Amino acid sequence: MTSWIESANAPHCHFPIQNLPYGVFAKNGEEPRCGVAIGDMVVDMAVLEAAGLLDAGGTTTVFDKPALNDFMGLGKASWDSVRDQLTALLAKDGDPALSGNGTLQRKALVPMSAAQMFMPFAVSEYTDFYAGKQHAFNVGTMFRGPENALPPNWLHIPIGYNGRASTVIVSGTHIKRPVGQVKAPTDEAPSFKPCARLDIELEMGAVVGLPSEMGQPISVQEADDMIFGYVILNDWSARDIQAWEYQPLGPFQAKAFATSISPWVVTKAALEPFRASTPAREKELLPYLNEPGPMLYDIDLEVYMQPEGAAKASRLAKTNYKQMYYSAAQQLAHHAVSGCKMNIGDLLGSGTISGPDKSEYGSLLEMSWGGKEPITLETGETRTFIEDGDTLTLTGWAQGDGYRIGFGECTGTILPAPDFKA
Amino acid sequence: MTSWIESANAPHCHFPIQNLPYGVFAKNGEEPRCGVAIGDMVVDMAVLEAAGLLDAGGTTTVFDKPALNDFMGLGKASWDSVRDQLTALLAKDGDPALSGNGTLQRKALVPMSAAQMFMPFAVSEYTDFYAGKQHAFNVGTMFRGPENALPPNWLHIPIGYNGRASTVIVSGTHIKRPVGQVKAPTDEAPSFKPCARLDIELEMGAVVGLPSEMGQPISVQEADDMIFGYVILNDWSARDIQAWEYQPLGPFQAKAFATSISPWVVTKAALEPFRASTPAREKELLPYLNEPGPMLYDIDLEVYMQPEGAAKASRLAKTNYKQMYYSAAQQLAHHAVSGCKMNIGDLLGSGTISGPDKSEYGSLLEMSWGGKEPITLETGETRTFIEDGDTLTLTGWAQGDGYRIGFGECTGTILPAPDFKA
Repeated sequence: MTSWIESANAPHCHFPIQNLPYGVFAKNGEEPRCGVAIGDMVVDMAVLEAAGLLDAGGTTTVFDKPALNDFMGLGKASWDSVRDQLTALLAKDGDPALSGNGTLQRKALVPMSAAQMFMPFAVSEYTDFYAGKQHAFNVGTMFRGPENALPPNWLHIPIGYNGRASTVIVSGTHIKRPVGQVKAPTDEAPSFKPCARLDIELEMGAVVGLPSEMGQPISVQEADDMIFGYVILNDWSARDIQAWEYQPLGPFQAKAFATSISPWVVTKAALEPFRASTPAREKELLPYLNEPGPMLYDIDLEVYMQPEGAAKASRLAKTNYKQMYYSAAQQLAHHAVSGCKMNIGDLLGSGTISGPDKSEYGSLLEMSWGGKEPITLETGETRTFIEDGDTLTLTGWAQGDGYRIGFGECTGTILPAPDFKA
Repeated sequence: MTSWIESANAPHCHFPIQNLPYGVFAKNGEEPRCGVAIGDMVVDMAVLEAAGLLDAGGTTTVFDKPALNDFMGLGKASWDSVRDQLTALLAKDGDPALSGNGTLQRKALVPMSAAQMFMPFAVSEYTDFYAGKQHAFNVGTMFRGPENALPPNWLHIPIGYNGRASTVIVSGTHIKRPVGQVKAPTDEAPSFKPCARLDIELEMGAVVGLPSEMGQPISVQEADDMIFGYVILNDWSARDIQAWEYQPLGPFQAKAFATSISPWVVTKAALEPFRASTPAREKELLPYLNEPGPMLYDIDLEVYMQPEGAAKASRLAKTNYKQMYYSAAQQLAHHAVSGCKMNIGDLLGSGTISGPDKSEYGSLLEMSWGGKEPITLETGETRTFIEDGDTLTLTGWAQGDGYRIGFGECTGTILPAPDFKA
């Protein structure tokens, strides 16, 4: 299938008609509203809704809002119906209501280059998992040696911790280098300074579109049905702050300063052809974690770094989401198992996605093996961790036959630490 | 000072005119709105606002809302002004606008017994700390022995972790016993079952009333200025789930099923006469954690348990908030230090408040010393952990000269585990 918006039909375009991811945008300083990406254009869904061409089936309008939450809350019948309506409106030889109406196109089609992107949804709560086995093994090996690399519970539980929703930001937002307490094992006492081991974590984020009830566990199938879509996620990490603070209650300020996500939520419907199975279980899972079918996705992922002033970005890693040991549906089922209520807009980070080869590692901690083996960029510069002015960009796509279901970019530039004297 | 509402003047009343805590209530199934407790009555602040007797100073009304968040966001000048206005309206020989108007009283005064209480504010995010030294020492001793009881960072950092806001509930809400993965050290593999070591944690909760900026640390004084008030908080805990899941990233489902808070937010203004200092520092703190003055409070706290069908509740513990090693202001300053944005409605749990004597322990884990020493109730029954049908009640007050600044009760009853077959 192709679109009458020709830019959507280019073979490497992230946003063909098969994708139709949702985001929140504004042009010319107008109020942010919901849009859908197609080729190099954003379709203003609020305009289509007001024109009577798009109906999400609720009792009120849902696209003239600065977040997807209201639309997500309408549930799967609405998600499917809106996708069908958009497909008809944007397909070549489809419904001519938009393709044949130049006046409406001038109102409803906004070049991506003119669109400012906002957070696509209001994050209710953010949870970060640790479900990549290679990553857990690498980090465990650095700290405890390869024999004790994986914690004893790791093969039984999709380990996760609650993160901080208030600092989940949309791609393109700059980030100040965090300050905080650090103490190297050889230091007498902790000191207060800017993070010296600033890192990324390459992750996918699952967006919860429907709520669960407090006090009621859910099955993996029910969990999968609650997921609206996925984004690419960068769980920025301050490794030196983390090392000193994380025992016994887990990461806190080391992860609280920023988490970036890509601006377009790619729907589960668009990803359906790319379902992949989690790897063979090394230990049998308890039944509440059993998957009824393939629940990962075959999504190629890349990491780039571009120092300030560098002519080009250097690729640091290439990996795939199907490397994960646990799927987002398993994570969500585990998240709710104690009776924890899940809400529309909850965001679940997958955990760092690393493949077995060094070129597939999803964090600088792993790429530089704890800072001991500098990485050489294509510009000749080297890095162990992130320096001020560096721009880190994550990208990814599912490769179809002649088209890509792309996520666009999740990018962020590190600014110097804030000026703060206690 | 006394009130013309005579029940407020009884010496042990939790809600004298010196208190004036805020909550959200409804009567007769009407819409929830903001109210203030005085004696055995709730004053409907929305009615007073509509009658022109109460003005928070904003551009719109703020009390005809199901949460205190809008009022909190108006800031200290508004908090002070509303307190002054309420004091004048409710004091004996004060402003007669309410005391002299029987018609208005019939609309604005609701007996507490007829008021249903709701969550007093929308919880943006919930963070739980671990700032009681006796509790950290007790728990550490049980797990690692007295020599290594305190983690190395404990005397330097107010250790905290992000909790789950979606299951913060108002006092009186019943709680289903959580289910989940457990594995005793002697078990071959984990199993899925209802929690067998269900516990409370006696805590105070600090309510953040004003936001901070992303990327900008705040001083302890700035943090204190952002705190609107305090509640009593029960951080329900599933100890067997916790023991198996918490390494390496901290408590997750063991704490995610429920956190109860008392319905009335006691303001910082009411607590001001009861300021107390944190104890002498055993290790010098980094300057960003230095307190400009006393920032704890002298608040007596009690824990009661009442089994289903028992004629009376048994007191399990009596302690005091001034036992804490870190104040809420220090915790909040640490929370924001990396650049973590804090929001209106964030809730910070103090950590379990245990005193040095066994009668002052704030959790059953400590009272029964890991379940090894059963507690005998006044009814003759014994407990190590909580059984189905048990009601746990926390209460507390600051004792003034002839009056109490009370928090009311934070209570919850445990129901059987949900029926769930994966």
